[in-house]
Amino acid sequence: LSARYESLNYEVSENKLYREAEYKTSHQITLWRISRNRWIACFFIGVITALVAALIDIGVHYSKDIKFNWILKYLISKCDEEQRGTTSGCMWTVMIAWIAYNCILVTIASCLVIFVAPIAGGSGIPQIKCYLNGIAIPEVVRPQQIFFYVTSNKKIIAEFGVACSVGGGLAAGKEGPMIHSGAVVGAGVSQGKSYSLGIDFGIFKEFRNDRERRDFVSAGAAAGVAAAFGAPIGGVLFSLEEGASFWNQNLTWRMFLSSMISSFTVNCILGWFNGRSGWLSWNGLANFGVFENKDYNVWEIPIFLLIGIIGGVLGALFNYLNTRLTEFRKTYVNSKFGRLFECLLVAAVSAFLAFLTIFAVDDCQPIGRNPTATSTQINQMWCRKGEYSAVASLFFQNPEESVKSLFHSPINSFGVPTLIIFAIEYFLLTLWTFGIAVPSGVFIPAILTGAAWGRLFGIYVERLFPSVTGIDPGKYALAGAAAQLGGVVRMTISLTAIIMEATKDITFGLPIMLVLMITKWVGDMFNEGLYDSHIDLAEVPILGWNPPKMSRNILADKVMRRDVVALERRERVSRIVEILKTTLHHGFPVVDRIEESVTQTLPDYGRLKGYILRTQLFKLLENRVFDEEHASESIPIDFSECQDDDDQNSQIDQLGLSSYDESCWLNIEPFMHPHPHRVPLNTSLPFIFRLFRGLGLRYLFVVNDDNKLRGVITRKDVARFR
Amino acid sequence: LSARYESLNYEVSENKLYREAEYKTSHQITLWRISRNRWIACFFIGVITALVAALIDIGVHYSKDIKFNWILKYLISKCDEEQRGTTSGCMWTVMIAWIAYNCILVTIASCLVIFVAPIAGGSGIPQIKCYLNGIAIPEVVRPQQIFFYVTSNKKIIAEFGVACSVGGGLAAGKEGPMIHSGAVVGAGVSQGKSYSLGIDFGIFKEFRNDRERRDFVSAGAAAGVAAAFGAPIGGVLFSLEEGASFWNQNLTWRMFLSSMISSFTVNCILGWFNGRSGWLSWNGLANFGVFENKDYNVWEIPIFLLIGIIGGVLGALFNYLNTRLTEFRKTYVNSKFGRLFECLLVAAVSAFLAFLTIFAVDDCQPIGRNPTATSTQINQMWCRKGEYSAVASLFFQNPEESVKSLFHSPINSFGVPTLIIFAIEYFLLTLWTFGIAVPSGVFIPAILTGAAWGRLFGIYVERLFPSVTGIDPGKYALAGAAAQLGGVVRMTISLTAIIMEATKDITFGLPIMLVLMITKWVGDMFNEGLYDSHIDLAEVPILGWNPPKMSRNILADKVMRRDVVALERRERVSRIVEILKTTLHHGFPVVDRIEESVTQTLPDYGRLKGYILRTQLFKLLENRVFDEEHASESIPIDFSECQDDDDQNSQIDQLGLSSYDESCWLNIEPFMHPHPHRVPLNTSLPFIFRLFRGLGLRYLFVVNDDNKLRGVITRKDVARFR
Ligand SMILES: Nc1ncnc2c1ncn2[C@@H]1O[C@H](COP(=O)(O)OP(=O)(O)OP(=O)(O)O)[C@@H](O)[C@H]1O
Ligand SMILES: Nc1ncnc2c1ncn2[C@@H]1O[C@H](COP(=O)(O)OP(=O)(O)OP(=O)(O)O)[C@@H](O)[C@H]1O
Ligand SMILES: [Mg+2]
Ligand SMILES: [Mg+2]
Repeated sequence: LSARYESLNYEVSENKLYREAEYKTSHQITLWRISRNRWIACFFIGVITALVAALIDIGVHYSKDIKFNWILKYLISKCDEEQRGTTSGCMWTVMIAWIAYNCILVTIASCLVIFVAPIAGGSGIPQIKCYLNGIAIPEVVRPQQIFFYVTSNKKIIAEFGVACSVGGGLAAGKEGPMIHSGAVVGAGVSQGKSYSLGIDFGIFKEFRNDRERRDFVSAGAAAGVAAAFGAPIGGVLFSLEEGASFWNQNLTWRMFLSSMISSFTVNCILGWFNGRSGWLSWNGLANFGVFENKDYNVWEIPIFLLIGIIGGVLGALFNYLNTRLTEFRKTYVNSKFGRLFECLLVAAVSAFLAFLTIFAVDDCQPIGRNPTATSTQINQMWCRKGEYSAVASLFFQNPEESVKSLFHSPINSFGVPTLIIFAIEYFLLTLWTFGIAVPSGVFIPAILTGAAWGRLFGIYVERLFPSVTGIDPGKYALAGAAAQLGGVVRMTISLTAIIMEATKDITFGLPIMLVLMITKWVGDMFNEGLYDSHIDLAEVPILGWNPPKMSRNILADKVMRRDVVALERRERVSRIVEILKTTLHHGFPVVDRIEESVTQTLPDYGRLKGYILRTQLFKLLENRVFDEEHASESIPIDFSECQDDDDQNSQIDQLGLSSYDESCWLNIEPFMHPHPHRVPLNTSLPFIFRLFRGLGLRYLFVVNDDNKLRGVITRKDVARFR
Repeated sequence: LSARYESLNYEVSENKLYREAEYKTSHQITLWRISRNRWIACFFIGVITALVAALIDIGVHYSKDIKFNWILKYLISKCDEEQRGTTSGCMWTVMIAWIAYNCILVTIASCLVIFVAPIAGGSGIPQIKCYLNGIAIPEVVRPQQIFFYVTSNKKIIAEFGVACSVGGGLAAGKEGPMIHSGAVVGAGVSQGKSYSLGIDFGIFKEFRNDRERRDFVSAGAAAGVAAAFGAPIGGVLFSLEEGASFWNQNLTWRMFLSSMISSFTVNCILGWFNGRSGWLSWNGLANFGVFENKDYNVWEIPIFLLIGIIGGVLGALFNYLNTRLTEFRKTYVNSKFGRLFECLLVAAVSAFLAFLTIFAVDDCQPIGRNPTATSTQINQMWCRKGEYSAVASLFFQNPEESVKSLFHSPINSFGVPTLIIFAIEYFLLTLWTFGIAVPSGVFIPAILTGAAWGRLFGIYVERLFPSVTGIDPGKYALAGAAAQLGGVVRMTISLTAIIMEATKDITFGLPIMLVLMITKWVGDMFNEGLYDSHIDLAEVPILGWNPPKMSRNILADKVMRRDVVALERRERVSRIVEILKTTLHHGFPVVDRIEESVTQTLPDYGRLKGYILRTQLFKLLENRVFDEEHASESIPIDFSECQDDDDQNSQIDQLGLSSYDESCWLNIEPFMHPHPHRVPLNTSLPFIFRLFRGLGLRYLFVVNDDNKLRGVITRKDVARFR
């Protein structure tokens, strides 16, 4: 497990200051103000997340617009004139223009990621997952926060790169990055200050600790999903499924507010952008259209089952290959320019492959056969006048549009070879794209792949049962999309809710659930979900849902670390400075006395009395709260919660402690947490695991029968057992 | 807090036997078998819950059918003949027949509840809530379980009484009891045996403990919601919102299977019952129809807000009055016949009031004006030929049908006075009905009330803005329904999901959320939700979501009980028998030695070594595992989990321990849980609360600095602080 990651600190340090805060007359009002501020913060999280998402969407819209309506239209019409009606000859110039344009956009996206904010690469969902599990990935959501000036924030800017990577024709979705920016917004808003801007709004100070921040990050992630898919319930479920060992009604309710406001705002903005301002039933960003024919029947269940199985297998294959590819990339493609070059290569190959396929597969359809297809005129390509290429309409539309036409087109709008080749190519492109240095999600590409092969089912079912009328291939395309996506990400109930909300339809809920359930079963036989594999690759000490198997006989004794760095209740400042300099532990147990042991090399620790955080010690030193000054009264009360990020960046040496200072004594007792979690030596690993998971612990002390300290267990010690 | 309730035991007793089980070669297979069986059990829970729900629904259908098509039609046509065209004169005979029929049905329902299974009275949701919170309410889901022979079970039979109470024209819904029967089925199936039948199927033995049972009960409740509303996601959310301090992906996933299967099955059965077998898109039991006009606009938001506020106030009023009424009932209506009489009275008054209103309110509409109204012919009543009474169509349809017509009828189908009077009357009738001794839910009546006053909004909005065309009063009726229901039950995200799934529509999700959120805020200013008030009235030691306020300075010292009944590791059998006879505690700490204290009346307990359950001691005595026999090997391995209900019923005396037996020694050490949860004396109440809530604890021991036992804390000790 990598040492880069730090656990988050959800524990309240219930020291004397914290307890005495309650005696203040203003305490009730403070509590009320905090709880009001939580709602306010959640409201703004919803609004800002929606703004970011809407801007990304509008960005994607314009980059497509430029491509189609300016470049392509112009070039094709010029070709048309030159070649009198058939454009086939000079299509290759069109292609080159197209590839060049795509490459430029992807370069922008990639540069943003590589040189501005590396964390914005990929979909960002694994990072959210880790954060909600209790692990801070450096740079995920902590530093460089924002408040109102979204544009000033590096990370958010980088997220806008997704508009370029989607606009650049990559097999990438904008949804993952939207969710991630939601989480970033959640972390930023709740802090009420912006590092990049150097502005501290001075508000929401009470939220500057990991416990509150986690709650806001989960609200932000929920808002991100709500904005991306128009799925507020799906968003809440997503946050719960990915993050929660906790389920708290109030928190859930606030997450719900965020995601609701976020949906509302997106609807408002897009309604306005599309010229119907004030109209709120706008259907979200990833709008997959409404199914006309909502019937399904018992005899279709085996087909859904089959689709589920295929989705599980394909998803597992995808995960396996992508994991291998990521490992390869880690070893061989790790220079900045190597990564930039890979992005360009992907962009060029994607575009080239599209043209090649259009050229090779002859699926020309008369214009008008498919009423749902848009911009058929531009997609004429190598087809005759009055026809358009069905392949081109799949490759050259927005991915969302392509999904829509796969779902809702009449049965004969796409030829079988078109669908097969498209599914295979898109599968491979997605595989390659996920993990390069651009912001890119896997949701929409997976849905598109699945919809393509799912539609095949529809066609074959119709051929098999020619007697049954009105078979809608869109239904199977939907099932295929769910299966492919489910097979890749292995989300369960939240994915069902998201798909249901994104299709604005509940009737197909049951088959979708069925498909997702089978898919997960089948997929889990082979490997983990994509996000989990990536988390494992990064060696993050994440804790799963259940204790490791066959671990009843692993006792605390074997899990714990024995060479504890402990403090006494009164310590000389020089020793504390020494410890802070030589160790990196996030906190230290306080015992009643430490004696040299006669038998062992380890000292003999006394009884466990408390626990103090590194940051707290730091602040004590900074404020020179040494004994002779009796300064404990002068400490600001919010000291009990000092988890500000600032502290973590500064160094011991910068405190400028004089040698007189170092000879002072520091009385730790009033500042330590007086009843840290403890277990006896004979505690089993599953028990410890449940404590960590159920309470979100960061540490656990092991004591012997006399309550004497014997060891310490942190999240990493537990996560080591799989 | 009442002593009637026992906490559930979610802790694994990790004794020697439990740990050694892992060394067995068959252990892996056992684990696999258990996890497979969980899925199988969940599958059957879904199927059986759906069967019960479908039977109830069919029962309601027939009891209405008899009433309308036989009695009413016959009588009215007879009147018609006698009076030549106008039926007004002899309507009163019809009324008497009607009342008599209703009373008979209600008597059946009431007798079932009063004399067969008292627990089936009311909606059953508070009981589920308590159970999932960790409290066994005597007779809720524990004894008298069922497996396949549903009909043989008293409780389920009593639940069928809901068909009578709904059929009997009470202002009662069938949904609450359906959810409750889901939970009962969940508890029953997982146990694989039936007390009432005396059959033990011998399967699912591994699930005969509280931990597993809780999971199955939550799956059953989810299945119940899924069956009642056709809302599988709502069902899962319901279980989570009501029950979960835990959120476990696997469990959620299994709950999801149950609710999915349950929806499927209901759709199948009702599809078949309605002559479309095999057709699965049947719309659930509480089908509120599909909205044609799905637009809404920004200017409507204030209207929704207003509806939310009114709903909150009305809901709070409802809860206040109903709680007072329940208190009154507890004191004055507590004899069996008193309760039966009350039911009859309610039935008679409900029916009489309906007739009176129809007579008094002159809202005759020409047949055909409202295309959604059914059976208009029968509803002629005092109206002229070719007309029907809109009031009668509200009162005399199935409640679900009435909801549908309030949602979807054209704007002029109901007069303003009709709606006002109907809303008031139904509000009052629901108030009176909820709590009498029949199975009756509050969902549908609240929805109906709310839909009636919500529709008024629609009418007035149209009058206010005559320029805006196409205002759909149904939209406001839906908002009103959500507001009224939300104000009464105060559920949040699960209610949103349920309403969305029941209306098969996602577009109105946002306004519904908005309304529910406002409603909850407003309502919570006045009082708790209906279910919570009833739980409080019953003095159940339920633990809320958050620790009590202002409790940082309440320490374990003040919370704990000092006079602990403890055991040593080797105890004489006579002492154990003595303790089991004289105390009722569910478990006992094991310490290394107990000495008389010189200073205090309490003994001086030694170091905390373990913890043993009452049931375990009982089983040890039963099996005579005394020291000299070295019998610990002969104990069946599943002893570590002995929580079978059987034990709890039998008595110490029935063990027939001889005086020789009593002089033996019992070595407790191999059977006790070796590392019970413990906290030091200076632990604060919020910390203890979070332990209880986060880990689902039943007990917690308080130790001093030397790890010596000083006190015990159970759920009741914590719940005492509010
Ligand atoms: N006060 C301490 N004294 C000795 N060892 C410790 C102490 N705190 C943690 N450890 C051990 O140090 C090892 C490395 O962990 P690390 O330094 O990341 O801990 P940490 O920073 O305290 O934990 P985290 O970063 O996850 O919050 C772990 O095995 C842990 O048990
Ligand atoms: N072993 C024990 N010795 C002394 N007091 C106990 C013991 N166990 C529980 N108590 C106390 O008895 C009081 C009454 O609780 P009750 O008898 O219901 O406990 P219980 O049956 O152990 O708990 P529950 O029924 O909620 O599981 C509580 O205040 C509790 O602290
Ligand atoms: Mg660390
Ligand atoms: Mg008890």
